[in-house]
Amino acid sequence: MIFIGERINTGFADIKQAVQDKDPKPLQEWARKQTAAGATYLDVNLGAISSKPEDMCWMIETVQEAVDTPICIDSNKANILAEAIKVCKAPALINSTTAVAEKLEQVLPIAAEHNASVIGVVMDEAGAPKDANKRVENAGMILACAMEHGIPPEHIFLDPIVMPLKFMQEQAGQILEATNQFKLFSDPPPHVVCGLSNIANGTRHKKLINRIFLAMAIANGMDAAICDVMDTALVNAALTAELVMNKAIYADSYVKK
Amino acid sequence: MIFIGERINTGFADIKQAVQDKDPKPLQEWARKQTAAGATYLDVNLGAISSKPEDMCWMIETVQEAVDTPICIDSNKANILAEAIKVCKAPALINSTTAVAEKLEQVLPIAAEHNASVIGVVMDEAGAPKDANKRVENAGMILACAMEHGIPPEHIFLDPIVMPLKFMQEQAGQILEATNQFKLFSDPPPHVVCGLSNIANGTRHKKLINRIFLAMAIANGMDAAICDVMDTALVNAALTAELVMNKAIYADSYVKK
Repeated sequence: MIFIGERINTGFADIKQAVQDKDPKPLQEWARKQTAAGATYLDVNLGAISSKPEDMCWMIETVQEAVDTPICIDSNKANILAEAIKVCKAPALINSTTAVAEKLEQVLPIAAEHNASVIGVVMDEAGAPKDANKRVENAGMILACAMEHGIPPEHIFLDPIVMPLKFMQEQAGQILEATNQFKLFSDPPPHVVCGLSNIANGTRHKKLINRIFLAMAIANGMDAAICDVMDTALVNAALTAELVMNKAIYADSYVKK
Repeated sequence: MIFIGERINTGFADIKQAVQDKDPKPLQEWARKQTAAGATYLDVNLGAISSKPEDMCWMIETVQEAVDTPICIDSNKANILAEAIKVCKAPALINSTTAVAEKLEQVLPIAAEHNASVIGVVMDEAGAPKDANKRVENAGMILACAMEHGIPPEHIFLDPIVMPLKFMQEQAGQILEATNQFKLFSDPPPHVVCGLSNIANGTRHKKLINRIFLAMAIANGMDAAICDVMDTALVNAALTAELVMNKAIYADSYVKK
């Protein structure tokens, strides 16, 4: 399972304050904690508080002073991605492109040049698809375009776009079905990722819904998630689901206490 | 979700003692507790302590004095099933037949006569299948034979035979795949059930494995389980998985505390 730690994001008040003050401590503390919890990548998100590439670069460099964990550069601005990727020490994961041609032409060359992986969100000009078929169509476009740029499928993380269960309950089944289809695109297949927390938006039992949905997504082939890696029950659910899928070998000690 | 409470079984020491002493209390207490916890059926299993149909009938009648919950008659002996079903007040679930022709010809007429449902374990003369395809083949035989006896698919509960993750890890994926296929047999489809606890046999994290596997099985169409209905985390996992599958409507209060 590829766990992408979600916590270094200016959407959280402590990170916002730290970036504004250029205080490295909170970022480095979350970098260490998420790495210790098993994060494969650390998502770094500057959010709306600045549009300056140097602020994103400061965040990444600050994190890299504390840990060696690869960075997931979370920005929808090509100029930020282009600068940020230059300071990443390990091959990065770019978060993200969409299935919009202009966006793909901005983001994919950056990924190709730096041997980076890319999250491809299956959104297009019309927004987020409402059914599995359109998700698969957009995913196919992203994957084909990536391959034209010399990026192999195993560097592509397709994101079927998780919708809130509470408000769009019928979408969950479409997302699982799309996930299943994404894994059939190629051999080796692309990765499938999601921004997990969206599934439980507005609900009273967020952690329960997060971990059960993730297990069901793993049953359909999902192998990555941007999530709260500090949630031990979530991590243990994912590790168990991967055992069931025979992607890790059973040992009595396969989960943490 | 169809929860079949597993607890009234002489494999448990208190039930064994109670049946030997003809003490109704332990059976009635578990009948009430499992019903309160949401059991759809109560499995009643005489086990190896007696081969007398009247002992099974005593168990069922004792349970029925306490609750109205339908009975799942758990026996592999046709003469016990034939007598036990006569004392069931509500349409029963027979547990079970296999895909062996002789067995089907013993069990299905009993079910047809009493408007009962039947669990069809996909085992045949060669034992339990090791791959999804053979499971599907045996399930198809059970379903076809049931329909010849006038039993509709919605009265059939196909059991793909859950194997221990610890010792036969590659089987879990085959079981999920078979479950998925079973649901394509007919419209309306047959139910798919499992004896859940087998998945975690010999492991250190039984409850975690039980509930994550069940969520993954529900993602593949499973809609019934013989399980520990007193395990609130398990029940909540299953209820969450059914929400994700859009089989129940979201309400903030969909799970119990």
